Amino acid sequence: MDLTIALLQFKPTRKSIEKNIQKIQRAMEGIKADLIVLPELSNSGYLYEKAEDLKPFSEENDGQGPFLSALIDISKTIESVIVTGYAEKDRSILYNSAIALSPQGPITNYRKTHLYDHEKMLFHPGDSGFKVFEWNTVKIGMMICFDWIFPEACRSLALEGAQIIAHPANLVLPYCQNAMVTRSIENRVFTITANRIGTEKLGDMNLNFTGMSQITDPSGAIRYRGPKDKATVHIITIDPNDALDKNLNPQNNLFKDRRLDLYQLVESREQ
Amino acid sequence: MDLTIALLQFKPTRKSIEKNIQKIQRAMEGIKADLIVLPELSNSGYLYEKAEDLKPFSEENDGQGPFLSALIDISKTIESVIVTGYAEKDRSILYNSAIALSPQGPITNYRKTHLYDHEKMLFHPGDSGFKVFEWNTVKIGMMICFDWIFPEACRSLALEGAQIIAHPANLVLPYCQNAMVTRSIENRVFTITANRIGTEKLGDMNLNFTGMSQITDPSGAIRYRGPKDKATVHIITIDPNDALDKNLNPQNNLFKDRRLDLYQLVESREQ
Repeated sequence: MDLTIALLQFKPTRKSIEKNIQKIQRAMEGIKADLIVLPELSNSGYLYEKAEDLKPFSEENDGQGPFLSALIDISKTIESVIVTGYAEKDRSILYNSAIALSPQGPITNYRKTHLYDHEKMLFHPGDSGFKVFEWNTVKIGMMICFDWIFPEACRSLALEGAQIIAHPANLVLPYCQNAMVTRSIENRVFTITANRIGTEKLGDMNLNFTGMSQITDPSGAIRYRGPKDKATVHIITIDPNDALDKNLNPQNNLFKDRRLDLYQLVESREQ
Repeated sequence: MDLTIALLQFKPTRKSIEKNIQKIQRAMEGIKADLIVLPELSNSGYLYEKAEDLKPFSEENDGQGPFLSALIDISKTIESVIVTGYAEKDRSILYNSAIALSPQGPITNYRKTHLYDHEKMLFHPGDSGFKVFEWNTVKIGMMICFDWIFPEACRSLALEGAQIIAHPANLVLPYCQNAMVTRSIENRVFTITANRIGTEKLGDMNLNFTGMSQITDPSGAIRYRGPKDKATVHIITIDPNDALDKNLNPQNNLFKDRRLDLYQLVESREQ
């Protein structure tokens, strides 16, 4: 089967949901795709001193707020699922979340498990666990940015059946793109890393986001790697069923070959 | 602290333990190193039609056989620990194993957990689990070749405290070297992949071993990558205590940040 997947790489503007909606609307004009992945925190931008400053630019996961409702409208026009990162507000608590939106509204919400660095000052760590949803018979999992460094994140999604990992990101370290190739190979899944570009400064923090949004396939091939610092939309067609076959060769099935009886996945000194 | 580590990349000769001992002896002459890692199946070479054909070139893990006793002699001369891959015989059963040898004899033996392709026709899958041994206060873990594709292998060793992963290999796929960079980053460990070179043919099997033996450090830096097809010994000095610090930054400890309560590490359909 053919599935058309797209990623949007852009520079979210801090403290302006409206500008971010406009940027996304413009980038999405005329696009045809079944699944579109946007960067992490696309509604809010990244650097805030404290949660209180970020709160006005966050919204709830019900799809009723200004940012998510605008994205649901786009999803209606394109007839696609959109996965976007966004600052989520749940009463007074903030999460760094990703949500899958269909023309009918929110499908499922994921709250980032592994917060990176200063994010720990702004967000609560995620409590949702790793979630897989089905869309037109295709299973899609979500993880966010720094989750890449923990092999258990992508592994959890793949073991739950995800064929495609939608991976909104705001990357500042240079390692993730190569690591996602390994994530694809070890789990035989597609990955779509939608990264942002640009710089943000706050006090003595000065971040350069690395772009190079990327799509990898179950064989580990890099099907697309974007530019470092240019906003871009990229669309490719894949067969998501390629991710159903976990056989590397007739003798090795990467899931069935796992030896849970021999693994030791708790740190020794914690035992 | 300083530790001098070496890897030997060479072409084991099939069906001649004697030639392999000679090649290793010659390569090791005059070397000074605290830890030396050799390729997988350094005593036997790789391709055999059936276990019965390989059996004469295998030996027990007691260090008394011709290959391991010759390596213990080398270890006495250099005053080092040698980790080598070898075909192990336990009564009538063969394992694809790695053993750590000190001047006093065998320290610990590891039987390859994840057998690759045709290896399943020759060897029993390993039953030893992932083993970490201590040498002069440094903790060292062993895994073999195809174990690289399972993140649980390196993860198990790192969680048990391994600072250095000794990784004998006979690689034919092109993905491992990059993946080991990710293994280093995600576990903040050193890795030493000692790969072989050359080709082997048997019936319609025709294998090209990929060389490019490699040393990576906890930051993910490639400290050495060898040639594709030349025998070589490479020695570098590292501080193994760099691998004790699992902090990526003051906010993120890659072990303490793990969320075992949220991971789902059993395949859904198997539950």
